[in-house]
Amino acid sequence: MAEPAAASSAGDAPEPPSKNALKKAQKEKEKAEKKAAAKARELADRQKKEAADGEDVSKDSYGELPLLDSKGSDSTSTSRVLLSTIAEHEDKEITFRCWVENARSQSAKLAFVNLRQEVDTVQAVIAASDKLSKQMVKFCGTVSTESTLVVTGLVKRVKEPIKSATVKDFELHILKLFVEVKAEVPLPLQVEDAERPMPEAGLGDEDEKPAEGDARPLVGLNTRLNNRTIDLRAKINQAIFGIKSGVYLLFLEFLSKKRFTHVQTPKILGAASEGGANVFEVNYFGKKAYLAQSPQFYKQMLIASRFQRVMEIGPVFRAENSNTARHLTEFTGLDMEMEIQEHYHEVMSVLEDLMLFIFNELNTRYKKETELVRSVYHIDEFKLPESGKVPRIPFVEGIKMLREAGEEVNDYDDMSTPQEKHLGRLVLEKYNSDFYVLDQFPLAIRPAYTMPSPHNPLLSNSYDMFMRGQEILSGAQRIHDAELLADQMRKHDPPIDPNGAGTKEYVDSFRYGCPPHGGGGFGLERIVQFWLGLPNIRMCSAFPRDPQRVTP
Amino acid sequence: MAEPAAASSAGDAPEPPSKNALKKAQKEKEKAEKKAAAKARELADRQKKEAADGEDVSKDSYGELPLLDSKGSDSTSTSRVLLSTIAEHEDKEITFRCWVENARSQSAKLAFVNLRQEVDTVQAVIAASDKLSKQMVKFCGTVSTESTLVVTGLVKRVKEPIKSATVKDFELHILKLFVEVKAEVPLPLQVEDAERPMPEAGLGDEDEKPAEGDARPLVGLNTRLNNRTIDLRAKINQAIFGIKSGVYLLFLEFLSKKRFTHVQTPKILGAASEGGANVFEVNYFGKKAYLAQSPQFYKQMLIASRFQRVMEIGPVFRAENSNTARHLTEFTGLDMEMEIQEHYHEVMSVLEDLMLFIFNELNTRYKKETELVRSVYHIDEFKLPESGKVPRIPFVEGIKMLREAGEEVNDYDDMSTPQEKHLGRLVLEKYNSDFYVLDQFPLAIRPAYTMPSPHNPLLSNSYDMFMRGQEILSGAQRIHDAELLADQMRKHDPPIDPNGAGTKEYVDSFRYGCPPHGGGGFGLERIVQFWLGLPNIRMCSAFPRDPQRVTP
Repeated sequence: MAEPAAASSAGDAPEPPSKNALKKAQKEKEKAEKKAAAKARELADRQKKEAADGEDVSKDSYGELPLLDSKGSDSTSTSRVLLSTIAEHEDKEITFRCWVENARSQSAKLAFVNLRQEVDTVQAVIAASDKLSKQMVKFCGTVSTESTLVVTGLVKRVKEPIKSATVKDFELHILKLFVEVKAEVPLPLQVEDAERPMPEAGLGDEDEKPAEGDARPLVGLNTRLNNRTIDLRAKINQAIFGIKSGVYLLFLEFLSKKRFTHVQTPKILGAASEGGANVFEVNYFGKKAYLAQSPQFYKQMLIASRFQRVMEIGPVFRAENSNTARHLTEFTGLDMEMEIQEHYHEVMSVLEDLMLFIFNELNTRYKKETELVRSVYHIDEFKLPESGKVPRIPFVEGIKMLREAGEEVNDYDDMSTPQEKHLGRLVLEKYNSDFYVLDQFPLAIRPAYTMPSPHNPLLSNSYDMFMRGQEILSGAQRIHDAELLADQMRKHDPPIDPNGAGTKEYVDSFRYGCPPHGGGGFGLERIVQFWLGLPNIRMCSAFPRDPQRVTP
Repeated sequence: MAEPAAASSAGDAPEPPSKNALKKAQKEKEKAEKKAAAKARELADRQKKEAADGEDVSKDSYGELPLLDSKGSDSTSTSRVLLSTIAEHEDKEITFRCWVENARSQSAKLAFVNLRQEVDTVQAVIAASDKLSKQMVKFCGTVSTESTLVVTGLVKRVKEPIKSATVKDFELHILKLFVEVKAEVPLPLQVEDAERPMPEAGLGDEDEKPAEGDARPLVGLNTRLNNRTIDLRAKINQAIFGIKSGVYLLFLEFLSKKRFTHVQTPKILGAASEGGANVFEVNYFGKKAYLAQSPQFYKQMLIASRFQRVMEIGPVFRAENSNTARHLTEFTGLDMEMEIQEHYHEVMSVLEDLMLFIFNELNTRYKKETELVRSVYHIDEFKLPESGKVPRIPFVEGIKMLREAGEEVNDYDDMSTPQEKHLGRLVLEKYNSDFYVLDQFPLAIRPAYTMPSPHNPLLSNSYDMFMRGQEILSGAQRIHDAELLADQMRKHDPPIDPNGAGTKEYVDSFRYGCPPHGGGGFGLERIVQFWLGLPNIRMCSAFPRDPQRVTP
């Protein structure tokens, strides 16, 4: 290990550290000494007080720990357990780190502390005795909410199930309780308020006064997002982001087994290639550059580069001034693109199997989290097709269903969001599934690189996937012939110049034998939102970005 | 399925599609008819020519396929094999998609085509016979390089190993050969040139004329990157990006088993919080915003939000005007952050185990790719510590080693890149490992949020990881106390305002009982570069970004 600074300046070869650094070190030392002196005084005061109260038999079993700065040995001294395994430790002493959900003194001799770790909570109790002092009981009963603790206690089975904790059958008899990191009082947001729904079934941005007969306020989205690091502590949020991580990992697990290569495509682009609308501009060393709206061009260029199956998870940026409950300006794209051997339905099959895999695994591996979230917002279970066969509905068939249900809509019109939701209800009725595919969209409402249908020039080899009547994926067979692609770009509304900046490299990459291919892109936050039936997509982004919000 | 447009206009309820759309459809139809007529003429011409040459017995076994637009049934008609499994098909007929490495006519009766799929190549041969026409032999011998084919052939064992293909023991006797997508001639870059090293051992940007006695040019980095979709087809590049995908997936595999949650932190920030230098500015709906230089603040805020262990893979943006072989303006960060129970070495242990897992799995799962790449650049194998214990070298000990080797460097100085590389050689000599950790860096050269060392105020609880003497990770225990953090920010050089925009939210998140924590961030491209010993980091980014390059 290093010698202190003073020692090294005595040698000959090495230059001493700068005078400033030495001064600084000296200052630090003085400060540390002052601190130590203050602590000593504090201790003396306490001892005096204790002498007055009678000796504190528990004085080594509670208190505030010094700042953990890794001063001690790096070999772990205690074995700490996970609260989720508490049932394995009946009648045993356990030590664990946790935090304070709330603490209350029942009397001078009895205190309760609700302790939390991850999404588990346990009731801890301490009663004064000849081994546990009243001072310690008082300390435990007044420890501030959200402080981080290290607690040692005895796991005891209880007769009546405990209502206020997730651990119902056991309580903890506190033996030691140390505050490791103290939370300031008061908190700008109460975690227990963050556990409850938002006003207007989750669509309310502003706080709402408590309903009559309920003393608790309904906290709106703005307050929550402004205090997001506290808001995220709520069990419902821990569950949401556990599930989000799950979808992320399941996507990769499934596709990597299917021989997809994970790639990274650039997020800074020299030209606003995909149409040019809704892109953020970046100052790139004094020149204009743009943030990628999707990895579309690049994932196709990688197929042209002979990566037969590629996937990418990455941020997607949309400078769209939409202030709705399902738009973000920055979200997470789950993208894939693959060679087609004979028919673009090969891609649809991979995508359907992928989503069924994810849903089924969420139902098993993330059952606890899913149930926790849905219970707060009283959301129906997500219905999967019983046959295991995902309904594939031709677009015009969907239009027909809507017309029969009274909607005024034409065969080749784009559906509005309310119409999509309406169709979702009709599909659920008819097929008993919240997940389905619309196939063969009208060519005119799809991007220029979409392969036209060989059966009807007004249609295309493209599809969208839906959950609970809302779009989660858009995909298609792409045009892999440079001349046809350039042609379609010129004919597109609005037209795209196939020789434009950024576009030319894309079109040219199809001149050298690019195989037929197709793919699609999911929005990760939408999958999580609709799986859980949540009212607002911002709930599925840790630090959401919208036209009004770029902080925290 | 949808009726054609004309039919739907006959009904009553649905409105007909717009006149423009109908006109367009009519035009499409006429165009298709013209095309069909041209095809028919072509066929007639060919038949005439064939009648002159004598009938073509193979006429249904070769030619150009029409554009694959998914016209046929969506149930797969042929079973296509992977070239990597060819040994399982001895004396059998197989069909597969592949592309042309090169084709040559030996005579009017004999032609060879080297076929490639993924990183495998096989020699295919066709000899004229009563079943295979001379016309077909000619067609096979002149098919353009890089065209995509569908080939059917008989797998036959050969007596002498084939030098020019990766499949040494078998050749393919062509029975059918169809061009599915034709590559234009000439290609702007030859794939076989992309297979060979760059000039100046990989550091040359410009092309170089062939050395005397070698007819082949050495293609520089610029030509390669300007034609990246062809360059990437080289086996060496397929291998590099296969390995990159591997590191990505292995990182997640290891940490998800260790209960890390994958998170997404925002890439667009309202304030340039981390010091403010080297950030790209974004026009965010008319206001200034910035691209994230790292997920540092946010991953810590997630620890403060009670996510006990988080990881993130995502793009990282650095507006640094560095034009070196190891800097990119956009790269892939592999980040992690975790609670510390007692000592920051807990984090180092996870990081070391993670990297050893990745290296060992690369050596098994990606052995073929690793060997392929290293063979081109004649790179030594990556040495791992035989004991399985990663050398942990205190920073000042590293400085001492350098001084003893003649470098002029002080205990608390930052090492220069050449000094780091020098130390890498010394460590390799002493510990026989290309992978090691430097621990306890001087506080003054680390970010303001670094926990100072309890043993020496000039040092800190921070570390870097190195591969072949080059940094791949920087990490530390972070300050989890708001007051100490604000204090250190004010004292930092240059000072940071703890109440500044973006910074305040970060500092405030430590006021509510945030547990002790630490973490680190890797550069994915660097891990791949140094694992393989490649000369330039641009080789490890599919579409690299540097101060001079934002295209393709």
